Amino acid sequence: MNQQMIKNAAGRMVPKFINGVEHTPYMGVGKYRPKGNKAAPPIATCVDYPLDGNKTVDSLKTALQKCGIGDGMTISTHHHFRNGDLVANAVFRAAAELGVKDLRWFPSASFPCHAPQIDHLESGVIHHIEGSMNGPLGDYCSSGKMRGMAVLRSHGGRYQAVQDGEVHIDIAVIAAPTADPFGNATGDRGPSACGLLGFALADSQYADRVIIVTDNLIDFPCIPWQIHGNYVDYVVVMDKIGEPEKIVSGTTQITRSPDRLLIAEYAARFVAEAGIMRQGFSFQGGAGGTSLSFAIFLTDLMKEAGVKARYIRGGSTQYMVKLLEEGLTDYILDGQTFDLEGVRSMRENPNHINTSPFTSYNYHGKGNFASMVDAVVLGATEVDVDFNANVVTHSDGKLLHGIGGWQNCLFSKCTILPIPSFRDRIPVIVDRVTTLCGPGELIDVVVTERGIAINPLRIDLIEKLKGTSLPMVDIRDLKAEVEDICGGKPAPPKTGDKVIAAIKWVDGTVIDCVKQVGG
Amino acid sequence: MNQQMIKNAAGRMVPKFINGVEHTPYMGVGKYRPKGNKAAPPIATCVDYPLDGNKTVDSLKTALQKCGIGDGMTISTHHHFRNGDLVANAVFRAAAELGVKDLRWFPSASFPCHAPQIDHLESGVIHHIEGSMNGPLGDYCSSGKMRGMAVLRSHGGRYQAVQDGEVHIDIAVIAAPTADPFGNATGDRGPSACGLLGFALADSQYADRVIIVTDNLIDFPCIPWQIHGNYVDYVVVMDKIGEPEKIVSGTTQITRSPDRLLIAEYAARFVAEAGIMRQGFSFQGGAGGTSLSFAIFLTDLMKEAGVKARYIRGGSTQYMVKLLEEGLTDYILDGQTFDLEGVRSMRENPNHINTSPFTSYNYHGKGNFASMVDAVVLGATEVDVDFNANVVTHSDGKLLHGIGGWQNCLFSKCTILPIPSFRDRIPVIVDRVTTLCGPGELIDVVVTERGIAINPLRIDLIEKLKGTSLPMVDIRDLKAEVEDICGGKPAPPKTGDKVIAAIKWVDGTVIDCVKQVGG
Repeated sequence: MNQQMIKNAAGRMVPKFINGVEHTPYMGVGKYRPKGNKAAPPIATCVDYPLDGNKTVDSLKTALQKCGIGDGMTISTHHHFRNGDLVANAVFRAAAELGVKDLRWFPSASFPCHAPQIDHLESGVIHHIEGSMNGPLGDYCSSGKMRGMAVLRSHGGRYQAVQDGEVHIDIAVIAAPTADPFGNATGDRGPSACGLLGFALADSQYADRVIIVTDNLIDFPCIPWQIHGNYVDYVVVMDKIGEPEKIVSGTTQITRSPDRLLIAEYAARFVAEAGIMRQGFSFQGGAGGTSLSFAIFLTDLMKEAGVKARYIRGGSTQYMVKLLEEGLTDYILDGQTFDLEGVRSMRENPNHINTSPFTSYNYHGKGNFASMVDAVVLGATEVDVDFNANVVTHSDGKLLHGIGGWQNCLFSKCTILPIPSFRDRIPVIVDRVTTLCGPGELIDVVVTERGIAINPLRIDLIEKLKGTSLPMVDIRDLKAEVEDICGGKPAPPKTGDKVIAAIKWVDGTVIDCVKQVGG
Repeated sequence: MNQQMIKNAAGRMVPKFINGVEHTPYMGVGKYRPKGNKAAPPIATCVDYPLDGNKTVDSLKTALQKCGIGDGMTISTHHHFRNGDLVANAVFRAAAELGVKDLRWFPSASFPCHAPQIDHLESGVIHHIEGSMNGPLGDYCSSGKMRGMAVLRSHGGRYQAVQDGEVHIDIAVIAAPTADPFGNATGDRGPSACGLLGFALADSQYADRVIIVTDNLIDFPCIPWQIHGNYVDYVVVMDKIGEPEKIVSGTTQITRSPDRLLIAEYAARFVAEAGIMRQGFSFQGGAGGTSLSFAIFLTDLMKEAGVKARYIRGGSTQYMVKLLEEGLTDYILDGQTFDLEGVRSMRENPNHINTSPFTSYNYHGKGNFASMVDAVVLGATEVDVDFNANVVTHSDGKLLHGIGGWQNCLFSKCTILPIPSFRDRIPVIVDRVTTLCGPGELIDVVVTERGIAINPLRIDLIEKLKGTSLPMVDIRDLKAEVEDICGGKPAPPKTGDKVIAAIKWVDGTVIDCVKQVGG
């Protein structure tokens, strides 16, 4: 491969060009300043839309044709159905039937249910995917078979890239659990309710053409209108757009592992002892067994102390909904519902608020919510002794996970990674992360079953935890201990030279890349 | 005056240049096609905003300075407080203190309470006003004393002009009855609650800089966030931003005039007899005594017939709120609260929905709500025998009213003007309207105390009303009758040559202009 590489401010060699377009290497946190103006979609006119507001057409294929689908275009979808999405596959099936080639698929994330897209990658319908690739698509990409280079962005980075005009969406296809013929749409109700549609907001605002696909068409007006019909070109009714029961993945079950329960308890106690858990505080917990257990431990501590949160940020789950409904928080500010209780609550509780990557995560906005959150707990596949963290590959180098809101959440006032110190006898605490996703200066605390390491930059936290009964450790000592247990450092990944994926930072610069495995 | 004039498709002579910029003359309904792309505000970055989300500064003057206020800039405000606004005057007082000159004031509308701006027009702080000028400012403008040419736009036309980049707002100042330090803001609560903030939406989205001014700062998050803090640069706290009791103007009282009550009753009966009032229908009534009485008569007919509306469009008033709360409509889709019951209902009723000129009126969107409404009742200062109507001047030529949502509403499936046939012994039904604001082809029915005239283009309506007991008339006969009563046609206006205001059509073209009176 003849790939021009350049060293970025984190010391990582990254591609200068991604799919033929030059990109800026990572310059450090807060160092890159964007230039220019936002993307400017074409001006529409009511002359081109039916006066009675009825934009329905008979099929997805018709809608794609009317949108002028053609070779090389960019087609976007959202992932609020997670592994239960039925629309993205239908889009590319229709595109294949129309004989279109070389499309760029720009999902907000892809899941194992999207494995059929591999056929379209093979046949040439899809040129490449930009977005996280969980499971089989990650595997396929890692093997070096995808023609173009993948680009992984955080949720905020995806909004930023669209807003800034870095990614121009030709056609956005938005699966909507309820919609009206004008294209107003909501995710919080209907037989396939998935909660909210925030990941499709940028797509609706900036794509040239927007198609709403629903299995629950109601009379105008569809209230709430999470997506505005004023951005929508066509509305298509399908029998079934998603399987909401598959929103609930394995990552939304509480952990039963004693080690992980211990980690969760440590993390909760840390939040309390560091003085973060105070009247009117805020926190964000994700899905994942440890995060959920953290929330449960923290809830107990809040009750004991008589502390109420001002807001908690989701991915919402039944545990967060319970906090809201028990009056332990004023609001849930939710970016993505992780289970059906979250969906119900968003529909029923006026204080369960739907947010979007625009409000919460866009680094090229006039601020965003992420940096205002008092504490966030996040996962990681690896953390190194400089507190840098990885979330997309394991130490074998395979691209298996997306970034999600992870990078954006690092801007919280206290970023905590409650993680096991090793997995399958492979150390998670390492000398240098395989893939850099989050700069160490933004990661404040690493909580493992063998102790808690505070980033030396956070003198304030170190001071606050003096005299605690929690097991505080130096991260280098922790690493040494783990290597002793595991019989040494992780084996280096067997990667080839070909760059198969670029990892973007929240500001659109390239923080790292992923190489072909075994190539 | 050396003003280059050009004849538009309605046969009106209009200025080719407005304040030095060329504008397209009106080409007919649906004839003008916009070219190009939407306005693209500068890309912001979180680097420039406080991580803790606190954007408060100590005064409006400081905020204006930090926004880089300078000579010749465009400053926008909204009019949800109507005649009770205290912020717009404060903005230009601050600008005067800062020694800034030649500003363009771009309010969504101005009211008699803004008379102090005349001093700033005289002293050179304000160069000219673009927006409706009710009362003393209209008078001032009509006298030819304003340096620049006024531009009057509909609410939708204002959104269109900002969206299309025709009007670039340097600094938007948004009065917000409740806000948080991040700039999230709502109009539906707080000591100065005014309902909603939809008229400021375009300003928040497209202005270079956005200032929120509030007298009720609360902890993040301000829910609902009718205005997103992610668009906001600075937040200023003032003692009092508005007098909500002055939202209720004289135009929101039911008429006591027997003639107008008769007109309202005719209009309501027309809607019923034309078959428009059917299960799940929709209508829009504005403020103004006749409109309000129309709604009351129609409510009675709905109850008699057991008919429920799907939605009604406001300007909301206590009468609309009653319809919602009695279950006679599923929704109020509200663009502007006209009384304090409307404000309360928007805060309390989840089915009292806040809309904006973007959703409802923007002609350069992918459709809008206005054309989906089954019937709308609107006022007019004059109607001519071709059903053309005027809403900004009377037959004396003085500019006294704004366009509001009037032009946008003309796209309703049935546009009804319930108006007196004469006022102060001056005919309202005329040969040719003094100022053309709405093309006759969009005006379906004129209802007067002396009979109802249907536009000959609406053969369907004429057919449906055959055999009615309502007094149907030909508009020309009506005009003759009114001239008999009034002793002839209205005297021609005593206007000079100087064009003092351009009247825009919903697509940004120039449909007519207003000349200096007595000049």
